[in-house]
Amino acid sequence: MSKITKQSENFSKWYNEVIVQADLAEHGPVKGTMVIKPYGYSLWNNIKNELDKHIVESGHENAYFPLFIPKSFLEKEAKHVEGFAKECAVVTHSRLYVDGESLEVDPASKLEEEVIVRPTSETVIWSMFKKWINSYRDLPIKINQWANVVRWEMRTRLFLRTSEFLWQEGHTAHANKEEAMQEALDIVQIYQNLFENFLSIPVTVGRKSESERFAGAEETFTIEAMMRDKKALQAGTSHYLGTNFGEAFGVKFQNQDNKEEPVYATSWGVSTRMVGALIMAHGDEIGLRLPPKVAPIQVVIVPIYPKNGSDNLEKYVKEIEVKLTQMSLRAKTDVSENSPGFKFNHWEIRGVPIRIEVGIKEAEGNSITLCRRDTLEKTTISFSEIGSVAEMLNNIQENLFLEAKTFLSQNTTEAHTYADLKDVVDNNGGFVIAAWDGDSASEKKVKDDCGATIRCILSDDLDSDSKCIVTNNPAKHKVVFAKSY
Amino acid sequence: MSKITKQSENFSKWYNEVIVQADLAEHGPVKGTMVIKPYGYSLWNNIKNELDKHIVESGHENAYFPLFIPKSFLEKEAKHVEGFAKECAVVTHSRLYVDGESLEVDPASKLEEEVIVRPTSETVIWSMFKKWINSYRDLPIKINQWANVVRWEMRTRLFLRTSEFLWQEGHTAHANKEEAMQEALDIVQIYQNLFENFLSIPVTVGRKSESERFAGAEETFTIEAMMRDKKALQAGTSHYLGTNFGEAFGVKFQNQDNKEEPVYATSWGVSTRMVGALIMAHGDEIGLRLPPKVAPIQVVIVPIYPKNGSDNLEKYVKEIEVKLTQMSLRAKTDVSENSPGFKFNHWEIRGVPIRIEVGIKEAEGNSITLCRRDTLEKTTISFSEIGSVAEMLNNIQENLFLEAKTFLSQNTTEAHTYADLKDVVDNNGGFVIAAWDGDSASEKKVKDDCGATIRCILSDDLDSDSKCIVTNNPAKHKVVFAKSY
Repeated sequence: MSKITKQSENFSKWYNEVIVQADLAEHGPVKGTMVIKPYGYSLWNNIKNELDKHIVESGHENAYFPLFIPKSFLEKEAKHVEGFAKECAVVTHSRLYVDGESLEVDPASKLEEEVIVRPTSETVIWSMFKKWINSYRDLPIKINQWANVVRWEMRTRLFLRTSEFLWQEGHTAHANKEEAMQEALDIVQIYQNLFENFLSIPVTVGRKSESERFAGAEETFTIEAMMRDKKALQAGTSHYLGTNFGEAFGVKFQNQDNKEEPVYATSWGVSTRMVGALIMAHGDEIGLRLPPKVAPIQVVIVPIYPKNGSDNLEKYVKEIEVKLTQMSLRAKTDVSENSPGFKFNHWEIRGVPIRIEVGIKEAEGNSITLCRRDTLEKTTISFSEIGSVAEMLNNIQENLFLEAKTFLSQNTTEAHTYADLKDVVDNNGGFVIAAWDGDSASEKKVKDDCGATIRCILSDDLDSDSKCIVTNNPAKHKVVFAKSY
Repeated sequence: MSKITKQSENFSKWYNEVIVQADLAEHGPVKGTMVIKPYGYSLWNNIKNELDKHIVESGHENAYFPLFIPKSFLEKEAKHVEGFAKECAVVTHSRLYVDGESLEVDPASKLEEEVIVRPTSETVIWSMFKKWINSYRDLPIKINQWANVVRWEMRTRLFLRTSEFLWQEGHTAHANKEEAMQEALDIVQIYQNLFENFLSIPVTVGRKSESERFAGAEETFTIEAMMRDKKALQAGTSHYLGTNFGEAFGVKFQNQDNKEEPVYATSWGVSTRMVGALIMAHGDEIGLRLPPKVAPIQVVIVPIYPKNGSDNLEKYVKEIEVKLTQMSLRAKTDVSENSPGFKFNHWEIRGVPIRIEVGIKEAEGNSITLCRRDTLEKTTISFSEIGSVAEMLNNIQENLFLEAKTFLSQNTTEAHTYADLKDVVDNNGGFVIAAWDGDSASEKKVKDDCGATIRCILSDDLDSDSKCIVTNNPAKHKVVFAKSY
């Protein structure tokens, strides 16, 4: 194992190297695809299980809809087409044949209508809702699915932007606007809670400007997280879709007075991108730092054996592991033949929250040396104090959140002049809060000038004399500008 | 809700109607695809969670490999191509464009090499194993993935045969034949255990004949279950792949003496087909009957309110539900406005193991009326005996297994003459055990004559004078013939 590039020297190189060295993922054979390796997958799986619990507890049901969507479905919602239809995988044939040693596509198997590999499932789900929704008794419908989706990408980055990715997509149908809007907001809360309390990543919550909105949405809510290079990562979105998809698919319901009414929709999703967020929000110079709640291994025990081995030490290590497991902690002993130095490095890169080092000295003295991954501090406790490992894990969980929160506030600036805005974006980076007139032209100017976009609209609550930072016209919104992934 | 066709009158119609009425699944818009509705999905999810536990406990790690496979990969393993390559979804383009109101496939986006939507993942996984396996230290690799796969099907049946289905596929790499063979057998044990102890479905375990083997396998082990129409359902398979895929992808490892050696493989999978098995192995005239371990709802409480309601009854119902939940049972109260008769029917079709009926009489007498779905028997207990509900669930779990086991043995016949074999297959159906000479010509004759195939080879342990039931030549194997799904 080689040392990795320092994060402070080249963030993007550091990111790629951490993913390789921590065994998280690799590129697949088809351009833009990703192989998620076991350690990376268990991060995803832990996030999935936690989020799924909250989704189900809040009254949603999991289901599964087809991977394939008829091309004609994508034509039905005009704005949706605009934003989504362009880059996607098109299935045109359904059979191959063997020609000598090679495999050929059978021209006779050409499909009558091309089939699209889902880039998202609004259209196929609303085609089913059309059958399921007749009366007010059928509403609300609150569905979620865990699935893979495909958006053909040319410039890909593991976890952040891949042609195929894993996600959950929620789709709900409601009898009125208020309920649908509330649903979209409730989901943002669930996402925020997941990020802050499970992943220890503070997020900034707001609405998207029109140009950044989801194709087909009337309102998109977003959670934006700050990575350690001070760029923003859109970490999850929740959309209020109004009656757009209901109308496109002819879905209506009969209210209690037997009158036909339109159906209101939401959709919302988070993806394997969250693993990218986890890496970039907490990682340090030497690798990953995982919050204990999401860590596949919370405590790794590294025994340091003398040349001739030691039964005593072996027994002691076993005792520690059993005890930690009894405490319901995810503990593992590294019994490989590698050197202690190699093992320390190995588990540091993988971000395991606590490393326990035990040698002859510890076994004889009934002591345990703990090394925290977040601060790299070492402390020695006696075996009888082993219960404090759980406390230390809680501390690490909290400390990572506080560190990220401090980093976020240290790199969030309020700008009052356009020169300030540009200066901060160009030189320091981070989030810049400013007033905006709501005009897409001024939004575009910032993007063209310094590459920052409006990450979200924080509020419309401004002093009456507030001026837009770009145009000096009366401002409508308080927004966050930042460069982003 | 209408009554369903009786199982005994038209099994296949019954099957389709149960799926609709129990809200399990529907056909999707693209031919051959399936929408798994929440109740059907929770059956799948419960099975998935149970199986995943056993897969992980036995040392396998979950990972995720891409949906897309380069066409050239499928050419690499010759037998694999034969068996698999024919019917699959071929992606040829990566972009659409808007032309007025319609969406068109952009000819400029034609892919250099066509991409296949995975029908199974051996090829893409072994292309990665090529990078991961160098030395004996890298072995074994024991990977599993939960994923969707696509095999373009023209004649589809919900859960049993759909173009896209969900499954787990395990893929392992080993340093020698013995270890790989043992792995394939260990997995069969895990599958058998899942079916018998979790799904209450007895299975017949054996090897596949050459003609029924997985494309690219040297040996395929199978578990075969008997449905209530006496047909066999192949419920899960585990393959010993020898060095076929290792060789096709140029994977070798250096042993401890620094010599290159070939790598041995297994693969194994079970799919959403298991939900079909569950329906057809236990369902009766009036609908599903679910074993309690897999049932999304184990106990449904149906309150029978008097015209003017009753606070007393409402309180009593709540007490019962709380108590059942405290016992860690999955309990639900049906608070809908439907009539009690409608509700009984509703939950019977859905196979909920126990229905609790409570009216004024029960509330006053502190009693509870239990109705078992498996036997339709009613018993009344006092509230203080509510703990016995858990026992009754165990009984139902066991009883469904015993019922299915009795059905299996009642419909398993040993045949000694070809006339007997044909007579049983044509008239009674079920599994027919007979001796076979191992020749694919005699196997084919049975298929042509009466539509039965060799479901599995039970053993090679025959009397030395055993004759093949078809040819009268010396027999090599004891096999099971049956019609199948």
